Amino acid sequence: MEVERPELILDKNIVLKNISMMKNKADKSGVIFRPHFKTHQSLEIGKWFRQSGVTKITVSSLKMAEYFAADNWNDITVAFPVNIREIDFINQLAKKIKLNLLVESIESVKFLSENLKADVSVYIKIDVGGNRTGIKADNINEIASLVRKIRNCKKLLPEGLLTHAGHTYQAKNKTEIKSIWNDSVVKLKAIKNSIDNNLLVSVGDTPACSVISNFSEVNEIRPGNFVFYDYMQYKLGVCGFEQIAAVLAVPVVAKHSDRNEIVVYGGAVHLSKDFIEERGRKIYGGVVKLFFESWSKPINNAFVKSLSQEHGIIKIPQSEFEQIKIGSLIGIVPVHSCLTVSLMKQYLTTDGEKIFTMNSH
Amino acid sequence: MEVERPELILDKNIVLKNISMMKNKADKSGVIFRPHFKTHQSLEIGKWFRQSGVTKITVSSLKMAEYFAADNWNDITVAFPVNIREIDFINQLAKKIKLNLLVESIESVKFLSENLKADVSVYIKIDVGGNRTGIKADNINEIASLVRKIRNCKKLLPEGLLTHAGHTYQAKNKTEIKSIWNDSVVKLKAIKNSIDNNLLVSVGDTPACSVISNFSEVNEIRPGNFVFYDYMQYKLGVCGFEQIAAVLAVPVVAKHSDRNEIVVYGGAVHLSKDFIEERGRKIYGGVVKLFFESWSKPINNAFVKSLSQEHGIIKIPQSEFEQIKIGSLIGIVPVHSCLTVSLMKQYLTTDGEKIFTMNSH
Repeated sequence: MEVERPELILDKNIVLKNISMMKNKADKSGVIFRPHFKTHQSLEIGKWFRQSGVTKITVSSLKMAEYFAADNWNDITVAFPVNIREIDFINQLAKKIKLNLLVESIESVKFLSENLKADVSVYIKIDVGGNRTGIKADNINEIASLVRKIRNCKKLLPEGLLTHAGHTYQAKNKTEIKSIWNDSVVKLKAIKNSIDNNLLVSVGDTPACSVISNFSEVNEIRPGNFVFYDYMQYKLGVCGFEQIAAVLAVPVVAKHSDRNEIVVYGGAVHLSKDFIEERGRKIYGGVVKLFFESWSKPINNAFVKSLSQEHGIIKIPQSEFEQIKIGSLIGIVPVHSCLTVSLMKQYLTTDGEKIFTMNSH
Repeated sequence: MEVERPELILDKNIVLKNISMMKNKADKSGVIFRPHFKTHQSLEIGKWFRQSGVTKITVSSLKMAEYFAADNWNDITVAFPVNIREIDFINQLAKKIKLNLLVESIESVKFLSENLKADVSVYIKIDVGGNRTGIKADNINEIASLVRKIRNCKKLLPEGLLTHAGHTYQAKNKTEIKSIWNDSVVKLKAIKNSIDNNLLVSVGDTPACSVISNFSEVNEIRPGNFVFYDYMQYKLGVCGFEQIAAVLAVPVVAKHSDRNEIVVYGGAVHLSKDFIEERGRKIYGGVVKLFFESWSKPINNAFVKSLSQEHGIIKIPQSEFEQIKIGSLIGIVPVHSCLTVSLMKQYLTTDGEKIFTMNSH
């Protein structure tokens, strides 16, 4: 492999399988599949989704919406509470595409109603227990009042109720994830029934979308991470290891035989500092052997022990340690692929193709 | 402030003060001041160092060396164990500038001796207790043998012994930091005395360089973070709050009065996920009020509680909570300014000037 420095290796076949797996589940359930593109951030990978029949997408910023709108994506949800300081940018985009924003306060709706120059659809952000943001699901009066405000504004169209049940990431097993899904669905449907049956119900997280097989209780799903998955999802039990599509190739720069540790060129600026905790240890990534066009299963008992700005320290069993040479490459399975992509800004596929993202340069 | 989305605000006057403080201490001690430029990654800020009389610098990658070499920096240390897969890049740079690399193994030295096409100076990386990388300081035989190998190669010039005492970041107070400094100095001088008195002794971390006033026991210092400092250094007690030069301005997008939390547009893709732990809590940043050309002292009992990809959740006392409006700006003091710069890629000074880094586009 002609890799001189850290490079994010992507297996296109796995990506295509992940896309069609989720698309098929959504189709069978008769729901809208609006994948979150913040994970891959790439026009090229967007085209793979388009080829599978996807026409509506989710992004995490207006800049990302603009990037994809330039490639003819024209129904885009920005799944982030509207930032009213970007009103000019909102107006510019809303003139070109069907732009869907998230609101959760009277203040934001008031500001939009006074400053919008084109139609915008809005989802109301509902907090089903993630406790990050959104109106609490049991606060039906506040939600109803916000819907009325929205209806009173000519340029705002109420699209639906949206949630991101991020607490599935803290779940201990599939049963807990399923129970969070069920709980979210019950809460969102209760709001819908008591306010307006035309409101769409949109849910999003990859853990739930991976373990639930029938989505027909909702109207739309917005998973993102499933396109590549990662070490966190694998350890959470929501994907198989063979579904992980991206691995960071890193050069080995030093070996420490007294403690079976290798030092690699690959740190926080490549992987981010997300970690999982396992048996009291922080783990910043899994470890695989790299082959020409694929990679091995995770090396048993090997893990990324720490990351500094450019360094990664990998703990590895004696038998494997001895086979690794200074100057060779090894693969790190990112704990959180979205952040790794955001940092790496481009991919090298196992077929040798370079793929760019909105941050490539 | 004309800020629509997260923007890294820089106070140039504080930066200049930090630079001259460290330069003066180095000059008084009669040691080489070779600041680490990985913190700011900017040609413009490099010029501020040059104006203070700096001529030698440290970087963390060959790419960064190339970036600064293009602006006539011609004595550059890449403070990272040499990555032999980049040999072509090394040869290219070594023909143009005095390039100083780090070695710590016979394998790397052998590879360099067979593949170098221009002279390269090398430092031997010594581990004084940080346990990240380098040859253990008490392993004098191995160090001596590596120095002999280096001397046997015509294109390799032994420059000195280099360490990064990263364990100062785990110190509990200034006394501990000073004791780590003293311990490092004793170890490095013992190696030097027993091998070759011409070897330079180069040490690096910002905590020690901030609390030590006389560096004359060593030959060179390489601090980087001190140029901006950050919340971690402030909490470690090695800088005053007024020495922190960079703050992330973020728009407020939601408020949750039931739990005195505000949601800002500013997350892991802007700040990184570095945190400090205080009284059992994870803290991802301090919080300040932003004025036109400066910022307040940290708001008491306010802190960044969590970060996801684009969201930050700030916990803030009731009295302050009520004054904050949706759409206003608030300042986050980064836990780790180096990583924040690497993610933000550019600065806006309090004078309204845009400053770019090697990753700007």
